[in-house]
Amino acid sequence: MAIKTKLSLTIFLFFLLALLCSNLAIARKEKDPELTTCKDKCDLQGQYDEEDKRICMEKCEDYVRKKQERQKHKEHEKEEHEEEEENENPYVFENKDFETKIDTKDGRILILNKFHEKSKLLKNIENYGLAVLEIKANAFLSPHHYDSEAILFNIKGKGIIGLVAEDQTERFNLEEGDLIRVPAGTPTYLVNRDENEKLLIAAFHLPPSSGSAPVNLEPFFESGGRRPESVLSTFSSKVLQAALKSSERELETVLDEQQKGRIFKIAKEDVLSLAPKRSLWPFGGTFKGPFNIRNNNPAFSNQFGTLFEVGPSLEKTGLEGLNLMLTFANITKGSMSTIHYNTNANKIAFVVNGEGDFEMACPHMPSSSSNSKQKKSSISYHNINAKLKPGMVFVVPAGHPYVNIASKKNNLLILCFEVNAQRNKKLAFAGKKNIMSALDKTAKELAFDLAAQKVDKIFERKEELFFPYDEERKEERGRAFV
Amino acid sequence: MAIKTKLSLTIFLFFLLALLCSNLAIARKEKDPELTTCKDKCDLQGQYDEEDKRICMEKCEDYVRKKQERQKHKEHEKEEHEEEEENENPYVFENKDFETKIDTKDGRILILNKFHEKSKLLKNIENYGLAVLEIKANAFLSPHHYDSEAILFNIKGKGIIGLVAEDQTERFNLEEGDLIRVPAGTPTYLVNRDENEKLLIAAFHLPPSSGSAPVNLEPFFESGGRRPESVLSTFSSKVLQAALKSSERELETVLDEQQKGRIFKIAKEDVLSLAPKRSLWPFGGTFKGPFNIRNNNPAFSNQFGTLFEVGPSLEKTGLEGLNLMLTFANITKGSMSTIHYNTNANKIAFVVNGEGDFEMACPHMPSSSSNSKQKKSSISYHNINAKLKPGMVFVVPAGHPYVNIASKKNNLLILCFEVNAQRNKKLAFAGKKNIMSALDKTAKELAFDLAAQKVDKIFERKEELFFPYDEERKEERGRAFV
Amino acid sequence: MAIKTKLSLTIFLFFLLALLCSNLAIARKEKDPELTTCKDKCDLQGQYDEEDKRICMEKCEDYVRKKQERQKHKEHEKEEHEEEEENENPYVFENKDFETKIDTKDGRILILNKFHEKSKLLKNIENYGLAVLEIKANAFLSPHHYDSEAILFNIKGKGIIGLVAEDQTERFNLEEGDLIRVPAGTPTYLVNRDENEKLLIAAFHLPPSSGSAPVNLEPFFESGGRRPESVLSTFSSKVLQAALKSSERELETVLDEQQKGRIFKIAKEDVLSLAPKRSLWPFGGTFKGPFNIRNNNPAFSNQFGTLFEVGPSLEKTGLEGLNLMLTFANITKGSMSTIHYNTNANKIAFVVNGEGDFEMACPHMPSSSSNSKQKKSSISYHNINAKLKPGMVFVVPAGHPYVNIASKKNNLLILCFEVNAQRNKKLAFAGKKNIMSALDKTAKELAFDLAAQKVDKIFERKEELFFPYDEERKEERGRAFV
Repeated sequence: MAIKTKLSLTIFLFFLLALLCSNLAIARKEKDPELTTCKDKCDLQGQYDEEDKRICMEKCEDYVRKKQERQKHKEHEKEEHEEEEENENPYVFENKDFETKIDTKDGRILILNKFHEKSKLLKNIENYGLAVLEIKANAFLSPHHYDSEAILFNIKGKGIIGLVAEDQTERFNLEEGDLIRVPAGTPTYLVNRDENEKLLIAAFHLPPSSGSAPVNLEPFFESGGRRPESVLSTFSSKVLQAALKSSERELETVLDEQQKGRIFKIAKEDVLSLAPKRSLWPFGGTFKGPFNIRNNNPAFSNQFGTLFEVGPSLEKTGLEGLNLMLTFANITKGSMSTIHYNTNANKIAFVVNGEGDFEMACPHMPSSSSNSKQKKSSISYHNINAKLKPGMVFVVPAGHPYVNIASKKNNLLILCFEVNAQRNKKLAFAGKKNIMSALDKTAKELAFDLAAQKVDKIFERKEELFFPYDEERKEERGRAFV
Repeated sequence: MAIKTKLSLTIFLFFLLALLCSNLAIARKEKDPELTTCKDKCDLQGQYDEEDKRICMEKCEDYVRKKQERQKHKEHEKEEHEEEEENENPYVFENKDFETKIDTKDGRILILNKFHEKSKLLKNIENYGLAVLEIKANAFLSPHHYDSEAILFNIKGKGIIGLVAEDQTERFNLEEGDLIRVPAGTPTYLVNRDENEKLLIAAFHLPPSSGSAPVNLEPFFESGGRRPESVLSTFSSKVLQAALKSSERELETVLDEQQKGRIFKIAKEDVLSLAPKRSLWPFGGTFKGPFNIRNNNPAFSNQFGTLFEVGPSLEKTGLEGLNLMLTFANITKGSMSTIHYNTNANKIAFVVNGEGDFEMACPHMPSSSSNSKQKKSSISYHNINAKLKPGMVFVVPAGHPYVNIASKKNNLLILCFEVNAQRNKKLAFAGKKNIMSALDKTAKELAFDLAAQKVDKIFERKEELFFPYDEERKEERGRAFV
Repeated sequence: MAIKTKLSLTIFLFFLLALLCSNLAIARKEKDPELTTCKDKCDLQGQYDEEDKRICMEKCEDYVRKKQERQKHKEHEKEEHEEEEENENPYVFENKDFETKIDTKDGRILILNKFHEKSKLLKNIENYGLAVLEIKANAFLSPHHYDSEAILFNIKGKGIIGLVAEDQTERFNLEEGDLIRVPAGTPTYLVNRDENEKLLIAAFHLPPSSGSAPVNLEPFFESGGRRPESVLSTFSSKVLQAALKSSERELETVLDEQQKGRIFKIAKEDVLSLAPKRSLWPFGGTFKGPFNIRNNNPAFSNQFGTLFEVGPSLEKTGLEGLNLMLTFANITKGSMSTIHYNTNANKIAFVVNGEGDFEMACPHMPSSSSNSKQKKSSISYHNINAKLKPGMVFVVPAGHPYVNIASKKNNLLILCFEVNAQRNKKLAFAGKKNIMSALDKTAKELAFDLAAQKVDKIFERKEELFFPYDEERKEERGRAFV
């Protein structure tokens, strides 16, 4: 019995020790070293008889087996987690991916920026940001400025924008389809001048000069007091009193009065008195007035879709010098865009209305891309896809072929901000003009190992850019082709 | 007694084990698992009587309590440390934040660069660097070049600069207020031509082209030998012998002779013989001569302060094509600048003389800014502030309102390098021209919820840009307002 | 004996525990705490006699000594490993450092990019990439596009390049020394039109606009089917059927037919039919034709070497607006370039032919460069060097002096891509024009503490840029000078 006690003590202590240390798991080798140690120990104990040793060894095996099972389970969990992260589509953003900057009962501001922190694959657009502004009927968004340049696009509703220059404020009406440039640092306010409809604005933010850092999208609110806080109230009382030549009491009046939040409903007569004086601004203000994306003829239009473009080559748009193009696509319900890519531009697309699908071909990025010593990578592509809904954002980098499809129920309306637009071309894989047909005969036959006419028959069709999606095919097969 | 021995052995071994393994501390849960294990063990020991068990369990509790205290202490220390880091103001740099590149009895070079490694908030200025050069009376800074473009500003003292072109050296006198551009890679030497006074120069370094990487501020010294080392002596002996067509002995003479360090005092006649030949250089040298920041009228001046500016729009300054503005502010003692911000420029400010205060409003950056899924951020601002002393540097990013205040004792002199200056404006919150008064009447009343006259009364005053700080107020309250 | 058993048990358990936990080694202090614990334990065991204690303590010492040896060994290994990493030369790339993108029996594509991930020291060239294309006799590289701008340089052999515009393909012959620009996104194919010789092309990739992210060098292959995969086959079957207005069967024909890989041999008549129609292209195509680097006189030539340059100031080269210079150096066998540096340009050099040496002086970068609080850094330089062989790449950042030496057996041919070339100068330390001689007399004497004539005698020589390396010296000493 004395021996048994020693045995149990020895084993107990070994297990205790193993339990506490096992997290460090030198282990992982096929033959667990702990098992060897444990068994050796059983063997070497002079006071053990054969039965003691057998029991001792069995307990060793049992312990190690259980330990290995625990480890396996942990590793499995870890792998699953990693897989999850890899499967995540970094090119598509839903409502939950936006950050809510302001959220009051009269409106809100959602933002999407610092793309490079979301995925390395978005480094091309790391410096840009997108804000979505929703302002309810007759509400007022208080004056504020950003440290970035912004292009505002009025998606829906009727707005007034006030831009503050050094000695006066310039006001403009914003109609659906209007875009307006807000230079960096300009104090700006917005009004929904409609009594019923919501005002919806997409604001694309750029760094004030090329080569700069990512935009912050932190608004500096000039007005307000303690809640909501004014940027002024941050300064110490003594500084404010000296700068404003005012007593503490006077300052408190100004800084405490405003209690209404950053977006709040205003009276109808206030809306009216904020209406731009049309006669004044067309001539020589500090700021450029709005430009409507429908002012020019569409860049392309057929029964399956229409595309409007405002780019860096157009004058008086406010986009001068920005290397940015705005496009607005209206894809007819049941239609699609051709499979195409931008040669130079990186596209940030905002779904304005309708539903549909997005598919993009993406060169496969192995996760261990950095340790690329003498690595032989086989080139393959994967299919990035998403069901599109209003308010979603998707990103199409230069060179990546993609397609948009409108549902059968509604037209699909997409607003795109295309950066690095200067020498951009859209090249299509199918339709009247396509790069497959543009290949010279011999190269075409070599590339496809097929007679040129056969290749052309596949890629050519009378339509350009927008095609019908569903109408002509009898059968529908949902399964992927490759 | 045998039992007691076993008890002590068991407990001893448990504690030993616990001691060695406790660093790994799976622990941290409320109910310490080690306590449970330890107590279970006491319970299970067949050979223990009740008294043994009680003692065993008490020792368990004692051990675990002490362990938890140790952990708490450690965590507390850690938290304090983290808090410290968070509280650290990333916009202000004191003497201790500079890196000492050279430090001899005759002078030194301090540098500040790689700002983005110091804080993400400084990403806007990540590519720039600032060096401060102190050269004692009649001392000589040996020829060297940088891989960055530099603008030197002569803060104090009388210098001579030698810039080496492909076949000759061009020399210029440097007076207080002179700025001169040193193109990337230009071998340069400096002389303090004064017999008594120290020469103090601020050198602002820019990457040689936009979009480049952060400047290194690693000087390449052409001359010198082994100590201080010449960049030449890095090459292998065989290469040097072939390139210089010289025997090993000849090379040793050249490379060993220089023993004086990188900055050293020189004879008065050497200083004289290095004086620029004035007649030669005004016409058509390789390099642009110095431009004095006081050559032009001040951009603004009143009894409370004066502001000099040299920007990209001025010709013959050497700043052409750099998108950089130099400003020099002299704030009268007891005065302040207005609360204002730069719309586009990021400002790196060097305190040349005097003491005073700096306050800046900064949008609050939550530390966990990256995991921003569906996060609702409330916008608030914090007050960045510092007591200014000569030699300190502070950074003011675009859009951030700030203020400078001179002490009652001395004028506060600040030299600023403003990058991204092209379309920059300074917008003020108070004074003759201010963005609050520039707001149109209705917007003003809505934003402040106050009659427009009341708002104007607060923000308007007859002075512009520089104001008195202390003089008119009777009472002084030190406590912060908000 | 009972005591001995207890002793052995105690010691055994202690060692077991120590063995398992020792990896965590709190240790490292001079006096090992485990030794103290172990010895204290020997001392405190009431049941031990003096002899037991002595044995116990000896075993303690023995155990701890062995443990320390093991640790030392481990640390030594670690240090060696770290040294290796530090010694690793981040400026030189051998064949094994390239990533193999394509490797078929008829050709291959190797790439080198994402330099900043390889070393922080390469941040200056982080956005660029280099691909090497080897295409065997009469082989065809299928049409593909990149999301980056490319400059192709035909190193060896006879090629045809096909560039696909929106509605036609333009073809050009490529001869040795030809460079041609391929705009971002342009579908491109290549043919080796020679029946015997390999075609070797270096392709330098740039982001499509300044300030963009690193180039991906992921090719998008337009043609091909499942293996090799076409970018088209990534799209879902339904999308392809609708976009191409084709049945699933038709699509399968197109996408499955091609089985030949991305580079494959083609028939002689196919090569002939791909020959450019010379009459067509000189006038007004979409793309600029090739420009031969030998079209212009060499920038410099003597019996020891020749340098060709094509830079941003030349017209009709295709490099317009790129801030890039291509140089081609032919260093005569047994000769060397002078020690020199580029003031602004960062150089990516590809060894085309011959063998030789590369040496570069580099400011010492302490590994702990980021925690630079009040750090006093002594400036010293280290020698970066490499044996050059064809296919190797080396990087020379702006400001870094370097030298190239051709072996006695073969001329050394180096193709260089120099980015940020706009205002670049090459400054030499030795030869007819050198910055040492260009120093004015007094500065020269001060810098070297030597008579000016002696300094000039060392640095001046009648040759410029290229010198003989070995011929004039009788003795050769292999050992480094400094």
